[in-house]
Amino acid sequence: MTASTVVLHDRSDVRRAIERELSEIFQARASAAAPYGNSFVRLWTLAGHSVLGGKLVRPLLLVETHEALHHRDPERPGPAALPAPTAQYPQDRAWPNQESVISIAAAIELLHYSFLLHDDVIDGDLTRRGRPNLIGALLAESGTGTSDPVDAENMSVAGLHWARTGGILMGDLLLASTHQIFARACVPQATRLRLLDLLEYTITESVVGEQLDVGLGGGIIEPDLGTVLTMSTYKTATYTFELPLRAAAILADTSPQVESTLSSAGRHLGLAFQLQDDLLSTFGDPLRHGKDPFSDLREGKQTALIAYARMTSEWPSIEPMFGSASLSKEDALRIRDLLRQCGAEQFVQGLVDEQLRSFYELLSNRASAIPAEVRRVLVDLARQLEGRQA
Amino acid sequence: MTASTVVLHDRSDVRRAIERELSEIFQARASAAAPYGNSFVRLWTLAGHSVLGGKLVRPLLLVETHEALHHRDPERPGPAALPAPTAQYPQDRAWPNQESVISIAAAIELLHYSFLLHDDVIDGDLTRRGRPNLIGALLAESGTGTSDPVDAENMSVAGLHWARTGGILMGDLLLASTHQIFARACVPQATRLRLLDLLEYTITESVVGEQLDVGLGGGIIEPDLGTVLTMSTYKTATYTFELPLRAAAILADTSPQVESTLSSAGRHLGLAFQLQDDLLSTFGDPLRHGKDPFSDLREGKQTALIAYARMTSEWPSIEPMFGSASLSKEDALRIRDLLRQCGAEQFVQGLVDEQLRSFYELLSNRASAIPAEVRRVLVDLARQLEGRQA
Repeated sequence: MTASTVVLHDRSDVRRAIERELSEIFQARASAAAPYGNSFVRLWTLAGHSVLGGKLVRPLLLVETHEALHHRDPERPGPAALPAPTAQYPQDRAWPNQESVISIAAAIELLHYSFLLHDDVIDGDLTRRGRPNLIGALLAESGTGTSDPVDAENMSVAGLHWARTGGILMGDLLLASTHQIFARACVPQATRLRLLDLLEYTITESVVGEQLDVGLGGGIIEPDLGTVLTMSTYKTATYTFELPLRAAAILADTSPQVESTLSSAGRHLGLAFQLQDDLLSTFGDPLRHGKDPFSDLREGKQTALIAYARMTSEWPSIEPMFGSASLSKEDALRIRDLLRQCGAEQFVQGLVDEQLRSFYELLSNRASAIPAEVRRVLVDLARQLEGRQA
Repeated sequence: MTASTVVLHDRSDVRRAIERELSEIFQARASAAAPYGNSFVRLWTLAGHSVLGGKLVRPLLLVETHEALHHRDPERPGPAALPAPTAQYPQDRAWPNQESVISIAAAIELLHYSFLLHDDVIDGDLTRRGRPNLIGALLAESGTGTSDPVDAENMSVAGLHWARTGGILMGDLLLASTHQIFARACVPQATRLRLLDLLEYTITESVVGEQLDVGLGGGIIEPDLGTVLTMSTYKTATYTFELPLRAAAILADTSPQVESTLSSAGRHLGLAFQLQDDLLSTFGDPLRHGKDPFSDLREGKQTALIAYARMTSEWPSIEPMFGSASLSKEDALRIRDLLRQCGAEQFVQGLVDEQLRSFYELLSNRASAIPAEVRRVLVDLARQLEGRQA
């Protein structure tokens, strides 16, 4: 079960609204690309397919949390009761209309995809969850079908260069689009500035997370447990959980205290989610999680499991195999057993439980002032994350 | 002589104001990076050094054009006469204060540097104009000084990966910063929306230019003359000349006609500038232009010179040598002679003259309504571009 299944279960109308918004964005961009030629149109079309094939976890979390925040005071009108603003720039402090919420939700999905693209360029990945990513799709389309092997090799070098360039450039375009949507949001100026601050903060932490990840992987940064946990929080928790929750709070004009509690709750949930991901990659069922089995071990990914194992007497047995591109299934299973044996699995499961416990404590603390309806959405999400297999 | 020398000659106060603004931006970002650790601080510090070492052609052009536009009507108060706005968001239609102009000028320098960084990642370049670029600097700092050759090789692969990641991520951060500055500009909302439109248009054309450049270089896109000229306009003219001129027009709240004339003038000047660059790279004096001599020929860059040569009977003699990474100086000189002989040099010089002629015609046309002071700034710039050797 994935985060998206949770957020989604009875809200297919919300999902449809987000999909419609994203679809309109990509259609408009592909049309505007036409005067610039087929390659540019194709870049937008392929990116649109990828984004619309996604799980939309982040925008769904934003919209559902925003709606739940409206329930805190039944006397305040819900978004549906408000007329759409007629002026280009409404100066009143009314709730933002539903369109602005959907628009910011779509923007954070564009940001997510921009991060994924640059991450794939950085990692040299051509697939994601077993299917060609944008770079893989551009590479597949770049061939000229030559039968001369020398030409074919030149073409494939050129094709890869072309495809990666497409990944970098589409990442840039989507990062720019995210900012354009935030900058033009039809909300009061003070709200817009809070959203822009949040966007800047989110991008900073995500970039630091990516830099730490690459530095840890390459041996440039010491792989101690604290750094690995920090990296996981910055790289995943900030933009996947904290961003949608805080954006919902800002759009609903909550008190700074509610925003701050949602921020902490998002970071706890996000870190739990990432640590679970690390556990599933190594100990989970590949048929259920859909990832290349043992790819973390083969790539030498510095996870919390590995950071813990380093401190144990089993590490000398793990180290020679860890990070080998040609790791056999037998050796991978052997590492897995050693990670269990040295207590790494149990330790990381303990960290997950600790993050979830802190999350529940935050929500149940009366002083945190989280409305009951929001608590329900978040507890629902966390409960199903606890038992997830994918 | 370079464009910066022209714009600068008697305006060192403007240059100082832009440098101060950029310096403050990078100092603030480096300070805010401190909680995230040394590697992130270092990324901002190195990027700041690079940006502040630049020629600042684009921001200078914006500020000088904006000031010149103020002279069109002596009854309107100049920027110095206006008090700084006290409200966070001034609603009046007064001229933007000088700080907003300097701030947008600094933002377009950040955009320029973001483009350079991603261009360097795409091209695999570690130097720019003979000195290490940000990626080269990060690579140099990543070494652990190991004496084991196997470790040293692993480190250098990891170091290059780390350095390129830094280039991608800093490009992302600066692209984000550019948008943040545009989105927060202390100007009326209508002006801000015009600036945001201009930014979106500029990024789109620059991305298309980069995509075409890589597609042409890799043989994915047919290298006909029309496509090469389009690529040069999109990749250079749009953001280097059109962007600062139109931003100045928008900030000065000119008529759409003046903005449109400045837009066309910028594109003509920009294309002339890029074509001159191509001529200088092949026929100029490396001691004066400072680039690696014949790097265009060695890299197989699809310039207008090459697109023309392809259509002549000399091409079969050029083709086997063109684009060879190990091109000797003798072969490079031979290609240069052939490019002269086949008429490519003369043809491209003719294109430069044609662009400059169109530029002068636009400016001198009374219907174009360009104020005399702006004409003076632009003619001054064009005249010195005509005779440049670097």
